[in-house]
Amino acid sequence: MVLRQIKTLIKRWFPTPVAHAHCDGPCGVYDPATARIYTEAVVSMTRKILDLQPPADQNPQAMATYLNTMSRYIQIKEEQAQKAKEEILILWTDYFKPQHLEQYPNLHDMFWKAAKLCSSCKVEVNLQHAEELLAAVEEVHKVFWATKNRTDVSWYKAS
Amino acid sequence: MVLRQIKTLIKRWFPTPVAHAHCDGPCGVYDPATARIYTEAVVSMTRKILDLQPPADQNPQAMATYLNTMSRYIQIKEEQAQKAKEEILILWTDYFKPQHLEQYPNLHDMFWKAAKLCSSCKVEVNLQHAEELLAAVEEVHKVFWATKNRTDVSWYKAS
Amino acid sequence: MVLRQIKTLIKRWFPTPVAHAHCDGPCGVYDPATARIYTEAVVSMTRKILDLQPPADQNPQAMATYLNTMSRYIQIKEEQAQKAKEEILILWTDYFKPQHLEQYPNLHDMFWKAAKLCSSCKVEVNLQHAEELLAAVEEVHKVFWATKNRTDVSWYKAS
Amino acid sequence: MVLRQIKTLIKRWFPTPVAHAHCDGPCGVYDPATARIYTEAVVSMTRKILDLQPPADQNPQAMATYLNTMSRYIQIKEEQAQKAKEEILILWTDYFKPQHLEQYPNLHDMFWKAAKLCSSCKVEVNLQHAEELLAAVEEVHKVFWATKNRTDVSWYKAS
Amino acid sequence: MVLRQIKTLIKRWFPTPVAHAHCDGPCGVYDPATARIYTEAVVSMTRKILDLQPPADQNPQAMATYLNTMSRYIQIKEEQAQKAKEEILILWTDYFKPQHLEQYPNLHDMFWKAAKLCSSCKVEVNLQHAEELLAAVEEVHKVFWATKNRTDVSWYKAS
Amino acid sequence: MVLRQIKTLIKRWFPTPVAHAHCDGPCGVYDPATARIYTEAVVSMTRKILDLQPPADQNPQAMATYLNTMSRYIQIKEEQAQKAKEEILILWTDYFKPQHLEQYPNLHDMFWKAAKLCSSCKVEVNLQHAEELLAAVEEVHKVFWATKNRTDVSWYKAS
Repeated sequence: MVLRQIKTLIKRWFPTPVAHAHCDGPCGVYDPATARIYTEAVVSMTRKILDLQPPADQNPQAMATYLNTMSRYIQIKEEQAQKAKEEILILWTDYFKPQHLEQYPNLHDMFWKAAKLCSSCKVEVNLQHAEELLAAVEEVHKVFWATKNRTDVSWYKAS
Repeated sequence: MVLRQIKTLIKRWFPTPVAHAHCDGPCGVYDPATARIYTEAVVSMTRKILDLQPPADQNPQAMATYLNTMSRYIQIKEEQAQKAKEEILILWTDYFKPQHLEQYPNLHDMFWKAAKLCSSCKVEVNLQHAEELLAAVEEVHKVFWATKNRTDVSWYKAS
Repeated sequence: MVLRQIKTLIKRWFPTPVAHAHCDGPCGVYDPATARIYTEAVVSMTRKILDLQPPADQNPQAMATYLNTMSRYIQIKEEQAQKAKEEILILWTDYFKPQHLEQYPNLHDMFWKAAKLCSSCKVEVNLQHAEELLAAVEEVHKVFWATKNRTDVSWYKAS
Repeated sequence: MVLRQIKTLIKRWFPTPVAHAHCDGPCGVYDPATARIYTEAVVSMTRKILDLQPPADQNPQAMATYLNTMSRYIQIKEEQAQKAKEEILILWTDYFKPQHLEQYPNLHDMFWKAAKLCSSCKVEVNLQHAEELLAAVEEVHKVFWATKNRTDVSWYKAS
Repeated sequence: MVLRQIKTLIKRWFPTPVAHAHCDGPCGVYDPATARIYTEAVVSMTRKILDLQPPADQNPQAMATYLNTMSRYIQIKEEQAQKAKEEILILWTDYFKPQHLEQYPNLHDMFWKAAKLCSSCKVEVNLQHAEELLAAVEEVHKVFWATKNRTDVSWYKAS
Repeated sequence: MVLRQIKTLIKRWFPTPVAHAHCDGPCGVYDPATARIYTEAVVSMTRKILDLQPPADQNPQAMATYLNTMSRYIQIKEEQAQKAKEEILILWTDYFKPQHLEQYPNLHDMFWKAAKLCSSCKVEVNLQHAEELLAAVEEVHKVFWATKNRTDVSWYKAS
């Protein structure tokens, strides 16, 4: 029922067969590897933030060093989570087409979840959410390469 | 059926009632007005691009002036459509929560359509798609303020 | 006297009647609403920063969470104040023309004050200055729409 | 008269003697040299744009090369003029204080003119305006270093 | 001889064994895959630029469509080449350490060449240089993973 | 020996005499002054960070003010060091050509050192490294202007 409604809606938006890609840019060079790299950085930074020891006393120089390191870790976590989010959303809005939605009916939810996890990783210092994000990106990786019938691209981590 | 699956998935991701916003930033200051302003610029730029006359001959200075103006129009269209897309996606990923999806089951499609129209407005010089984007943003405006029970915010255009 | 000097200067810079807009981009789509939204975020973030409680002891994880939240609030305040400043200055440098200066002789001071308040809101954690900035933006809103003879655009807040 | 009004306004905004700088960032490291460098690039790019010859016929490869070069020149002119504008406005909003306005009553107009010239240099391909901008930046250079009683910083051009 | 001078210089800069990484950010998450993806986009865009046919006549709408597509291709080529350059330089300045230079004495030249090729790919529409850049990135990929003793990361292309 | 290898390599990359500049943008407007200004800001911010006193107790408002100031100082240090790095690398990758390397065989090391010092200034709060960076930029300034046979550009500091 709902699927049919979605189909009808999609037909209305894209009246002719989508022969030309409506992509943002250079078709064919999408690769979820970038989202994976950013997410690995989020995991790594979350760990480092949790491990960093505050100085024993309020010594100005010790505080300066502690806060410099902490601020940079937080800032890098923020940026990398934001970039992961952007890469994930580019795939959703530009690579994936209505025909993929028919194949993967939970496509929207998969991406909504992944994007919301990116935001969680910014708002919190939460290793579990960072690792859930990495798992979500791995899922995206699998679906993506499956739609391209590519079996030669294995999942690996740089860290 | 599909709705139930979605619900189950959502329950798994967000096990406790989402009392604290998982938003990216300053809760309560979301406003689709920014997306509307960017989209108005897209409409305006699309019109100006279509109206610009190429020089009658290949005179270097006339070509330089024509291309300077044209390049800037195209660049502004590109930037504004990109910013509209970002604003639209911030609402989707950060403002809207699972309970809104229950209320508006076509939420994902509404945003997917709007985001894809932003990309179309970049790829093409197409006044119809620019105006469909403005209509899509108006729809987002209505749903957004409805979820906040605000009836005092009227839809207007700056141009 | 000074007014006359200003006029003479202006005449020298813009020898012919300014029939074509010297604007940066898409004429007709200026809207102080963006500056208002950014400023609302500054007010909101200033409040949240002042309300945030440091952890009772120097527990590493509690400090990490506190500093993650605090850093993000400060960063968002910074960004939003910067964006408010940019929007305000675009209006001053691109929308407002010499004829508006004749109508509003304190135009320069109004904008200088507003821009300086943006900087204050970055440098300080000062709720009074944040609210003065919001008032300054409301003043800009009024002058702006008055110059366009638009009476249908009411001032509202999203938060 | 007007001067007095301005003074009164300023007093109201800044009730105590401004002992602490309300600057955006690292006080003491302002230097109009950056605005000068960006403006030199605008002058250089404007010249190159005007000198570039369109291809004799519509040969695809010749057109591609011509448009690649032209687009880059236009884009660089745009960016450099934008950065010159930002540097100029940082000086106006953050370095210059009310006491400077008393010393240089045409301060606001000097900066308004310079900022508007930046916009003109973007909108047009106009060597005269580019050179007027360079002269305006030289004027800013002189006033700036005079307020710091520095006589050792000479005006030079990199190109 | 020269090698010895270099060694001496390096010893002077880094007097103690470099036990702590002087990296810019999240150690261990470097991955040349990003540079590869950006470079693939440069190759793809160069091809598309060379293939795009100018309109037969100066019809305004045909010109608008042609220039919109061409401008976007050029802009994407520019951005992706710039990002490839940034990724390449992060590896050179932050990942690679003096001990790697001893192992790979042509390290500096390898990176200088790669960075200069990025600039060439911006300045020109030159498929040969784009492909040379891809080869240079593949070389970086090999050296990088060799220094990490990782043999499981194979070179693949997304396009 | 090594010099000869380098020469051979260079000849292979750039087979014809490099008559046309392979620069990124507006040739002739390079100026190390920008790197110097950014570096002065890094020195200034490092000093301010080291001088800032933490509040005596954990009073929320005092902590908020302290962290707002500290975060901004750290952020400005980060940004300015990053911009200094970018300016330095633009000179290395775009201004300097193989013939300069023959003249200055330690060119690569000079720039590698300078770029690595930028990263150190981000990672640490270290006044000595900040001053070493300023010295490195002064060295770049001297080499740069020497290659242009300009003796009229003196080294000065804005702060």
